[in-house]
Amino acid sequence: MVEAHADVIQIGTRNMQNFSLLRRAGKAKKPIILKRGMSAMLQEWLMAAEYIMEEGNSEVILCERGVRTFVRHSRNTLDLSVVPAAKKESHLPIIVDPSHAAGIRDQVVPLAFASAALGVDGLMIEVHNHPEEALSDGAQSLYPDQFAHTMKKLTDIRSIIESS
Amino acid sequence: MVEAHADVIQIGTRNMQNFSLLRRAGKAKKPIILKRGMSAMLQEWLMAAEYIMEEGNSEVILCERGVRTFVRHSRNTLDLSVVPAAKKESHLPIIVDPSHAAGIRDQVVPLAFASAALGVDGLMIEVHNHPEEALSDGAQSLYPDQFAHTMKKLTDIRSIIESS
Amino acid sequence: MVEAHADVIQIGTRNMQNFSLLRRAGKAKKPIILKRGMSAMLQEWLMAAEYIMEEGNSEVILCERGVRTFVRHSRNTLDLSVVPAAKKESHLPIIVDPSHAAGIRDQVVPLAFASAALGVDGLMIEVHNHPEEALSDGAQSLYPDQFAHTMKKLTDIRSIIESS
Amino acid sequence: MVEAHADVIQIGTRNMQNFSLLRRAGKAKKPIILKRGMSAMLQEWLMAAEYIMEEGNSEVILCERGVRTFVRHSRNTLDLSVVPAAKKESHLPIIVDPSHAAGIRDQVVPLAFASAALGVDGLMIEVHNHPEEALSDGAQSLYPDQFAHTMKKLTDIRSIIESS
Repeated sequence: MVEAHADVIQIGTRNMQNFSLLRRAGKAKKPIILKRGMSAMLQEWLMAAEYIMEEGNSEVILCERGVRTFVRHSRNTLDLSVVPAAKKESHLPIIVDPSHAAGIRDQVVPLAFASAALGVDGLMIEVHNHPEEALSDGAQSLYPDQFAHTMKKLTDIRSIIESS
Repeated sequence: MVEAHADVIQIGTRNMQNFSLLRRAGKAKKPIILKRGMSAMLQEWLMAAEYIMEEGNSEVILCERGVRTFVRHSRNTLDLSVVPAAKKESHLPIIVDPSHAAGIRDQVVPLAFASAALGVDGLMIEVHNHPEEALSDGAQSLYPDQFAHTMKKLTDIRSIIESS
Repeated sequence: MVEAHADVIQIGTRNMQNFSLLRRAGKAKKPIILKRGMSAMLQEWLMAAEYIMEEGNSEVILCERGVRTFVRHSRNTLDLSVVPAAKKESHLPIIVDPSHAAGIRDQVVPLAFASAALGVDGLMIEVHNHPEEALSDGAQSLYPDQFAHTMKKLTDIRSIIESS
Repeated sequence: MVEAHADVIQIGTRNMQNFSLLRRAGKAKKPIILKRGMSAMLQEWLMAAEYIMEEGNSEVILCERGVRTFVRHSRNTLDLSVVPAAKKESHLPIIVDPSHAAGIRDQVVPLAFASAALGVDGLMIEVHNHPEEALSDGAQSLYPDQFAHTMKKLTDIRSIIESS
């Protein structure tokens, strides 16, 4: 049913190694965003992507969303070094979700800038008209004008990174 | 003796909680770069800085250089979210050392760009004329022309971040 | 099909938060061994058990099998303090799997003794007639006589722990 | 001055890689308890012991006191698998400090039993006449009669482990 209505299907962190779900996603005719598991090694993540691709769906997008460490000043620890490491071992596009990694609005914007400067293929950022009233994840959602300002700078950073 | 000759004194990761060294550094008339311990919480790091400042030396520079996690695709995991978190709780300048965090040349440049986009106050990057012949840390040292190219882009990223 | 033939159903580490599987297990008429996720907090583990029990199956057995840390001298880090912590917050029985935690035969026996002394409700230990020829996990499987000797000592340790 | 009065000198977790202190301890005529660093690899710990021994003091006792992980139900995660791993690579005696690892009285006793069953060469357990009034670490200190009862069981566990 999700496949019939969504443009992209996301497999969440807790299901990165749910192999029957991966295989089912491999039969879908939609791109799959595969979020990295809470403590997944790069190889395990790429292997999970293989499960999808083996069933015929080659449109897999990796999404780094922070890993679990001893750190307590952010919800998870965004592991940006996995981006160049993944690009070296795989041709798959890789995006970053700074909202879930940080869990705190103040950290989302700088981490988004950092990800763009690193050359990621995309960003997944949460925005809400009234974050205070959000049913979930309000504390990490940007205000609309904050998002607009962020987008402008992201575009500028990207153009610098892409220039030779 | 170090104090007499160096412009800046660096306290390394393994000595972040060597309290007699911290107190001695607090009596020095030179700025102190205080590297974050391998698994230091933000509060422990700021407390270590307090030890230095209590002795009268307020010129302390924090330096994030990666923390130890389960990850194996980089030597340490660069924890960039600590930068906005530290800026929120402290007035101290904070710089990033992507060379020691990554341990691999290919990751140093993108992590330097990411750090600049995040608004760090400085970067510590290793460069070597002939990295292959370096007595230590050759694998993470940039070539001189690679460094020059990186510096140019870092300046461009910084100007975007600093514009309103 | 598994339910029809097995005496106990095990939900593996990678599926601890596969919520549709948890709910299906909650409808089964067999006890469920719920292995702890690779980096699961105690609360997340107990919550996963709740998913099963909410569907009517109260026979859930928790199984600690090591968590993922920076450590490299064992495959995972057996977190024995989770045993008294879980017993404090829940009435569920808890067992330990030292074979998967260690990944190395030499560590399995001492970790089994340690677990027994801690008062666990059971142990899951891999044994093989010819570990060298095992199709998987041979390096962590005990030899039959090693297992027999271990069992004897485990019984002795248990009787000490249970005496007042 | 410590050397003149103490029977044993302890080098704390935060100083495991304070190399000038290690070398000084190597010149002392007293046994040295070398606590494992917060996130020290086994090899780094053994190397720190080497620094002491190279100066002529071969009486080094390793002390496992828990490592820093994502876990929050105990202060640190007691890594008991390091005991058999260290014994395999080194002749040094190794003891366990369950009090600092757990940080909570209720976990100290079971972790002490577990350590004894594992074959450690000693235990370091905090006891206090009036833990509620302790100036530090009261929450992890045992009551005297609790300690006496624990000692009795520890002796029994040890005799089982040492019997052939």
